[in-house]
Order: sequence, then C-alpha cells, then structure tokens
Amino acid sequence: MVLLSGGQDSTTCLAWALKRFARVHTLAIDYGQRHRIELEAASEIARMAGVAHALVPCDSFRALGGNALTGDEAVTAGVRAENQLPNTFVPGRNLIFLTLAAAFAYQRGSANLVTGVCETDYSGYPDCRDETMTALQESLRRGMDAPFVIHTPLMRLSKADTVRLAQDLGALPLLAHSHTCYNGLIPPCGACPACQLRAKGFAEAGIADPLLERLARA
Amino acid sequence: MVLLSGGQDSTTCLAWALKRFARVHTLAIDYGQRHRIELEAASEIARMAGVAHALVPCDSFRALGGNALTGDEAVTAGVRAENQLPNTFVPGRNLIFLTLAAAFAYQRGSANLVTGVCETDYSGYPDCRDETMTALQESLRRGMDAPFVIHTPLMRLSKADTVRLAQDLGALPLLAHSHTCYNGLIPPCGACPACQLRAKGFAEAGIADPLLERLARA
Repeated sequence: MVLLSGGQDSTTCLAWALKRFARVHTLAIDYGQRHRIELEAASEIARMAGVAHALVPCDSFRALGGNALTGDEAVTAGVRAENQLPNTFVPGRNLIFLTLAAAFAYQRGSANLVTGVCETDYSGYPDCRDETMTALQESLRRGMDAPFVIHTPLMRLSKADTVRLAQDLGALPLLAHSHTCYNGLIPPCGACPACQLRAKGFAEAGIADPLLERLARA
Repeated sequence: MVLLSGGQDSTTCLAWALKRFARVHTLAIDYGQRHRIELEAASEIARMAGVAHALVPCDSFRALGGNALTGDEAVTAGVRAENQLPNTFVPGRNLIFLTLAAAFAYQRGSANLVTGVCETDYSGYPDCRDETMTALQESLRRGMDAPFVIHTPLMRLSKADTVRLAQDLGALPLLAHSHTCYNGLIPPCGACPACQLRAKGFAEAGIADPLLERLARA
C-alpha cells in the first residue's frame, strides 16, 4: 500500500514498491489540497503504473487548522503549509495519513505500507523522522493486531539520491507526470521552493527532469 | 482534551477530567454517525459542564468502509459497527480519533488526552487495549514532539465500576443527558446490546440510571 501524493518522492516510492512486491495498491488522501492537480497527477501515475488506486477523503485538517481552532491566522498558515511543507498545517499529519493507509491495507489483507517521508529534506518535522515511523509502526501493529511494516525507502536520501534511485528503478517516465510546484502550475513556476528543490536534485544527479522534457516536447 | 462521544463512558471521563485539571476542553468527532443524537448529547453535556466543545469532522471512515474498499458487504458491516461496537467498522478507529485529538490539543497548548476506552467491555478490540494506548502515546509524542499523556480512567473498570465512579464524581446529572441506545431512540429502546449493557451496569452498582429518571419525570 503506497501513499501516493502525486509528487516526486511518493512516485519514486511507487516504483520502489513495484520492484519489491508482487501486488501494489496506491492510496491518495484528499485533505482539501488547494491544487487538485496533485490528486490528478497521483491518479494518472497509478494508471500508468497499472496499479489499483484509491482516493480517501479526510476533511479533518481544514477544521483543525481553521475555524475550529484559532481562526484566520491558522487558516493562513494552513493554506501556506498545504502547499509547502508537510506538518506545519496540522502536527502529526503523517500519523493520520499512515493510519488511514493502514486501515485500508488491513481490510485488503496487506501489511506493507510505503511512504516517501524523508529526514533529509524535512528534518525539522517530527512526523517525518525515522524514530516517529518506528513508534507509529508499533502503534499500528498493536492497534490493529496486524504485522504492519512501514517502508521508508527515501528516509536517508538527499534529493539527488532520490533522483538517482528513480532512474535506477526506471521511474523517470512516471516522474514525467509527477507534480511538485507549490503554485500548482504546469509548466511548473520554477521559482517556488518546491520547484527549486526539485531542480537542484536533478541538477546534482546530472539527470534531466523528465517532466520538463515532456512539457518541452508537448 | 476529552474525547466526548456523548455516551456514558466518555461523559464519566469528562467528570473525571473536571476533578483533575483546571482547564478542560471536549472534542467530538463527526464521522458520519447514523444517529446525530449522539453528537447533540455531547454538545449538551459539554454545555452543562461549562467547558468549551469542538466538533471535528472526519469523512474518511465512510470511504474506508464503503465503496473505496470491499463494496456492499463492508458497507453493511460499517453501518452495523457504527451503531454497536467501536473498531469493527474501521480497524484502528481510536488511533485516528486520538491522533486528531492530539493535533487539536497541541495547537491549544495541551498535552493531556482523556479517553473512555476500556479493556473490560471491549477486550476483543485491539485499539481499546492498554498496550495500544501506550504505543500510541509514544507515537504521538515523537510525531509531534510534545509530552502527550493518554489518560484512560476506565481502562480496567467493569460497567458497574464506571457507574460507581460516575456517582463518586457527581456525574449523574451529566449522565442524565448521555446517549447509549444503538437504535438512536429517546427513551432508549432497552433491548439493544448497548441499552442492556448500560442497564446491567446501573443494576449491579445499585444506582438508578439518571437518564431513565429524567425521562420518567419529563
């Protein structure tokens, strides 16, 4: 069960899972992303990979970050966080996402959860850390009486390492459809932090971004 | 931060928290309960207790239990579970509820979570067990970098013990507004398993159910 956001990291994780497991399923969480294009990218990438894909809604985050909590300031912070960094918006968001993925996996007889969380890029975010994933895995195992394993193939990788891994896995055609830009633009704006981090990773790996190549051909 | 469903157990937990903490907040999760009367009971009980109350939506469970998963059979199981026992519907539901409560508490500067889960009544449900709560507490602490404590004052109590605790805490006036009946009826049907368990607890404790007394007076 791969948590697929439609971004570069989770798309690479999908390719990793396809090499490792005979049966792969993807899951996207619709938590009210400002840019629906992310969910469309996830769906398209799953289709290209030939795997079953599910979209699970979760309307809790808007309420937690919005009126139910601290009002306008939180809403602003939330909107920003939804499009920039995980976990600024609602602490522990990855805990929720992975618990939903586990519930979904449980009902399909799967115990393997794959997520693109990474300490390297987001070391300030406690729910991306390896020690959090270890504790969460234990919590899921006990809470559902099932032998869950949370796989985090990107945990220690730099963005350049992730790009190299994607190439090794033959995932560049999938990455050509991944979405990264915080501003929700196609072609990507190139200026936002997400675009810049992506560009830096491809540059350092010495590999052309297949998304930009695809758009240039289009 | 007390997870308040509007039922007998969480209402007793609210009374417990009022004795223990200077500042108490309640939180109900709207996960698509078939009987809205439960949420109305939670709101009324919080108002009577004079505490701030929040309703956080969570539309994920319907999707997990319904079409997104296994179709009609799961839907049926889900509808039954929503009105009978926790956790049959979606494994790990308490993990989600408590993680949402933790995110909400975090943003209000609170680290104390109170829940009415109980091994005694629901020993078959892994997300009600003490060992699950211990693991979840660790997961929440690491995932949000905050010193969460999950308080489970009813964990080892029988239903009769819980009734006695409620009396000792002066919670009977609040319990007069709690909702238990699976069939969503006022007066309660008296025949469903929830009504029977509640009646058995009051009978064994030798205390009259204040809900029935209130309705008899009305």
